[in-house]
Amino acid sequence: MTKIEYIKTHCPLLATLDTPADLRRLSVDELPQVCHELRQFMIHELSMNPGHFASSMGAVEIVVALHYVLDTPNDRIVWDVGHQAYAHKILTGRRDRFSENRKQGGLSGFPNPMESEYDTFVAGHASNSISAALGMSMATELQHTSRKVVAVIGDASISGGLAFEGLNNASNNKNNLLIILNDNDMSIDRPMGALSKYMTELSTSKGYNNFRYKTYQSLRRRGMMGDTGKGIVLRFNNAMKSLLTGQQNIFEGLNIRYFGPFDGHDVKRLVKLLNEVKDMTGPKLLHVHTIKGKGYAPAEADPTTWHAPGKFDELTGERAKNRAEYEPLKYQDVFGKTLVELAGKNERIVGITAAMPSGTSMSKMLEAYPDRTFDVGISEGHAVTFAGGLAREGLQPFVAIYSSFLQRAYDHIIHDVAIAHLPVTFCIDRAGLVGEDGVTHHGAFDLSYLRCIPGMVISAPINEHDLRNLMYTAQHEAKGPFAIRYPRGRGVLVDWHNEMQVLPVGRGRCLTAGTAPVAVLSLGHIGNNVAKAVAAVNAECAVAVAHYDMIFLKPIDETILAEVASKARCIITVEDGTATGGLGGAVAEWLTSRGSGVKLVRLGLKDAFIDQGTVAQQQHACGIDVESITQTIKNELSEL
Amino acid sequence: MTKIEYIKTHCPLLATLDTPADLRRLSVDELPQVCHELRQFMIHELSMNPGHFASSMGAVEIVVALHYVLDTPNDRIVWDVGHQAYAHKILTGRRDRFSENRKQGGLSGFPNPMESEYDTFVAGHASNSISAALGMSMATELQHTSRKVVAVIGDASISGGLAFEGLNNASNNKNNLLIILNDNDMSIDRPMGALSKYMTELSTSKGYNNFRYKTYQSLRRRGMMGDTGKGIVLRFNNAMKSLLTGQQNIFEGLNIRYFGPFDGHDVKRLVKLLNEVKDMTGPKLLHVHTIKGKGYAPAEADPTTWHAPGKFDELTGERAKNRAEYEPLKYQDVFGKTLVELAGKNERIVGITAAMPSGTSMSKMLEAYPDRTFDVGISEGHAVTFAGGLAREGLQPFVAIYSSFLQRAYDHIIHDVAIAHLPVTFCIDRAGLVGEDGVTHHGAFDLSYLRCIPGMVISAPINEHDLRNLMYTAQHEAKGPFAIRYPRGRGVLVDWHNEMQVLPVGRGRCLTAGTAPVAVLSLGHIGNNVAKAVAAVNAECAVAVAHYDMIFLKPIDETILAEVASKARCIITVEDGTATGGLGGAVAEWLTSRGSGVKLVRLGLKDAFIDQGTVAQQQHACGIDVESITQTIKNELSEL
Repeated sequence: MTKIEYIKTHCPLLATLDTPADLRRLSVDELPQVCHELRQFMIHELSMNPGHFASSMGAVEIVVALHYVLDTPNDRIVWDVGHQAYAHKILTGRRDRFSENRKQGGLSGFPNPMESEYDTFVAGHASNSISAALGMSMATELQHTSRKVVAVIGDASISGGLAFEGLNNASNNKNNLLIILNDNDMSIDRPMGALSKYMTELSTSKGYNNFRYKTYQSLRRRGMMGDTGKGIVLRFNNAMKSLLTGQQNIFEGLNIRYFGPFDGHDVKRLVKLLNEVKDMTGPKLLHVHTIKGKGYAPAEADPTTWHAPGKFDELTGERAKNRAEYEPLKYQDVFGKTLVELAGKNERIVGITAAMPSGTSMSKMLEAYPDRTFDVGISEGHAVTFAGGLAREGLQPFVAIYSSFLQRAYDHIIHDVAIAHLPVTFCIDRAGLVGEDGVTHHGAFDLSYLRCIPGMVISAPINEHDLRNLMYTAQHEAKGPFAIRYPRGRGVLVDWHNEMQVLPVGRGRCLTAGTAPVAVLSLGHIGNNVAKAVAAVNAECAVAVAHYDMIFLKPIDETILAEVASKARCIITVEDGTATGGLGGAVAEWLTSRGSGVKLVRLGLKDAFIDQGTVAQQQHACGIDVESITQTIKNELSEL
Repeated sequence: MTKIEYIKTHCPLLATLDTPADLRRLSVDELPQVCHELRQFMIHELSMNPGHFASSMGAVEIVVALHYVLDTPNDRIVWDVGHQAYAHKILTGRRDRFSENRKQGGLSGFPNPMESEYDTFVAGHASNSISAALGMSMATELQHTSRKVVAVIGDASISGGLAFEGLNNASNNKNNLLIILNDNDMSIDRPMGALSKYMTELSTSKGYNNFRYKTYQSLRRRGMMGDTGKGIVLRFNNAMKSLLTGQQNIFEGLNIRYFGPFDGHDVKRLVKLLNEVKDMTGPKLLHVHTIKGKGYAPAEADPTTWHAPGKFDELTGERAKNRAEYEPLKYQDVFGKTLVELAGKNERIVGITAAMPSGTSMSKMLEAYPDRTFDVGISEGHAVTFAGGLAREGLQPFVAIYSSFLQRAYDHIIHDVAIAHLPVTFCIDRAGLVGEDGVTHHGAFDLSYLRCIPGMVISAPINEHDLRNLMYTAQHEAKGPFAIRYPRGRGVLVDWHNEMQVLPVGRGRCLTAGTAPVAVLSLGHIGNNVAKAVAAVNAECAVAVAHYDMIFLKPIDETILAEVASKARCIITVEDGTATGGLGGAVAEWLTSRGSGVKLVRLGLKDAFIDQGTVAQQQHACGIDVESITQTIKNELSEL
């Protein structure tokens, strides 16, 4: 069955909806059917083309109700993170291209303003929606346009400091921002923190809230309640609620009108609610409960696994088997297992993750040593400063954060760890190209933004054994901040387990000795591509191109640099990170400081934002796949 | 009168207090006198040796009560920001060195763990105390030591996202953290945001809170209230309070016990309170009211001016006159005046500051166009994401943030502005060495951390006219993110006002043509040092060393680079920022990519954290004062 046939057969109503304007021509009573068909369509598509499943399944009614009530794209919806937004993509002109989701040249897996006018803001990193929507709402005020702005944020994202800053500023200026809190009591893993507990408690008073809302509506209908007097009554109601339920409403404390919680899967009710609150002046928050994975039993039962399940059988829910058993482990799993191993021998070790126990495999430490492991929720800044506090008292924190999310903690690394030279180990996962998650998720910049920090040790393992050795070294030395970066995905060894040993800080190694006038220096896992390329060139051209695995970017191995600079006339550096300011930058600075005339070719991520695709496609586009590296070596050899 | 004589005469009790242990030997009734003498001592010292005045005057009783009740240094006090902590420095063994405050080789103006065991954590950037103290408190739990940990945070700092992340995590784990909220209703300027309003409202119910606290104490004394049952009663009390006062207690909402507000200048009461709460289990917050500048009438009347008043007459409060009238304006004032000028002609322009209207001179825009100017409080991340939202809707935000504080917004620059290439102008004040504020405040890293971001324009003016021209260019082009960095302090021109013109993006200029084998490239205001050095060398050695003002770091002027590389055998780059990865890095990458054998000498901040001192001393230490640059040029000339 072709795609078009499938849609016409299984999703007859959805097949007629090319834009939100089509949706708005339907009656309210038809909306549940739209929601049903959207779910069928997503299940069908995502079973074949993997993506973020459970979040988007849970947000279907929110998407439908918003586009039904609002005048999109003139009105603005700002999605937070945005893997809840597939239904939004499907309803906004991208239904027939949805099978290209997360593919090179296709659709971004996240809302992307460069892709559609309906995607209002970049949405890959959590907690930015309130601040961005507030800016858009204030712009509406300043430009005297009439436009509604809605931020849709999950209960995990709203615990981030940025979301709080947005909330704290929302009532400070004249604006009519509507915040929809999509509360499924889940981030990718279970959400953390007092705010999360707090929202659970809020929900226990659902009956009371409904009563309160109905009272308000009743007074409003009878003209007894205008928008101006409402604040007072709401406060009174909340105070009464506090008395009855023993809880405080944080949002009202921040001067944001709170409505909820309501059932986020009752699309007709949502439409009614949105119609009622959309014209209210002032900032307001609508709290709705949803179920992550809603409408697909296997996902409802295990939403963490189904956050991004990979391919699966549409009918049975059976997930496609992982590849063959002899494949190497993922780096993240080697990290997780090794951390547990080290923690067993060194009781100073503690682990910290920011809402990513599964994604970073910190879950292994959490299982083995729950008292020594901290999931701080979506708050990378706190994670690092908190680690600084732990290190100050003699502990040895291992903080595992994705490279691109660690950008959120840049100041905290400098100010709260590096200045006092505290022994915090940064385990930087997803460093380099990440593939399908695309532009917002690449770990492109860490080598550059860390290299300028005084006293940082920056390292990257070429394989699982070196990841283990570097972790061992970090906790063994424990002399200051120590960064270990490794990529998304699998390692290269059949047996990941080795007897760990200290690697001398700042010393690299020669992998292939050579006498050719071209030599290659690499850092980290990308060195495996280089090794293949060098082997191919050396075999094919009967030369001896040297290859060095630097292991450390900072301090850099000057012995290797001196050796290479004295022998080669061209050095090629290869790194899985921006070619601006990282390994290539360090080598360039070293060479020029000595007036060396050696030519340097810096291979790495080009100076541009790189869209979704497979890692292989992206490596090729950046010239760091085996083939491209091979060609570059050959070109340089032939030019000399 | 010598210092020792002054202390003995005017501060006889303080003269006997060499460590907190001495303080603890006094009776409670003697503490008001200690507070009085501390104030006299600070007024006397700071009238001669300028520092942060008003905050420290306001926190005297908090400092005295904490050191009196706690067993410091075994117990930990974590100061937030730390310009409230002078009395703490004076009481912890640094009284007789206090005249070296903020001086080279002397005391840091902020708590500094490298300086004293009583200074537990780095404290220059706001809002980090709760997260750091929570880490220290958790470490105490893990190590089964008995140690109290107290964070002291101001009402402005607590509105930062990091503080919220800390609060949100505080109740998540077993710990006995005590947070003291030092609420003076002031940051450097007036604090912003809903939380600030909220705390003002909390204070209106002071009578009620006191009643509630007394009830609790009474029940506790009679053994009717243990620590376990307390939560319920507190919640009930707060609910009752909500009903009576129409407000919600955010802290209780986050599961942190709240006590307050109390008078923060009643030192005997504070001692009593601290004794009562210090052994309570679980996280708790004590809210005290203080007056910024307390005890010195001129400072109480105008705390913003007296935040850091410079020298003043101890008796009259008359502040030392600014220097002669013909001195150049500060860069920040040229920025402020120019923004108003531009905003008058371009109604798309809006201004954003993060709690620094005075420090950045965004106050001028705030006065002229209050509707188009936003002070978002201490929340740099929100400031940038909010700017992204405004830019998304066609406005042209100018975001003025100090370089070192902008580190807090690094991810926001990349994710919320650069990816969608939104036209936000970053006016990066205090870029480069900042002098007396020292290690936490230098704008050392911005050139490096921004250079790797695709699509960023990065520029730095050599004087006031170019600052204006660059601002004009940024709003005129409005094609994407545009950074303009300029230093603390004064410009160089008698008349700062010029007819503004567009500077071609990516084009530098030749300031001094030359034929000597050494050429100098500089970026920004530091170019004035270079100009003097080049003039001195050319005059003294009868050579023609060329000097280029690059203006733009990114895109860099390759025409200049090609010209210089073809003529010179040595290039010296000079920048007021780390010599790792910035201008020198860019030139090194360019040279090596062409296999140029030109030697490059990169002058800039060394790869180390740089302590307090005058800017001149710091420039000298880094080799970027006129004398050092002159010497470097001569050395290179003689080596060739």
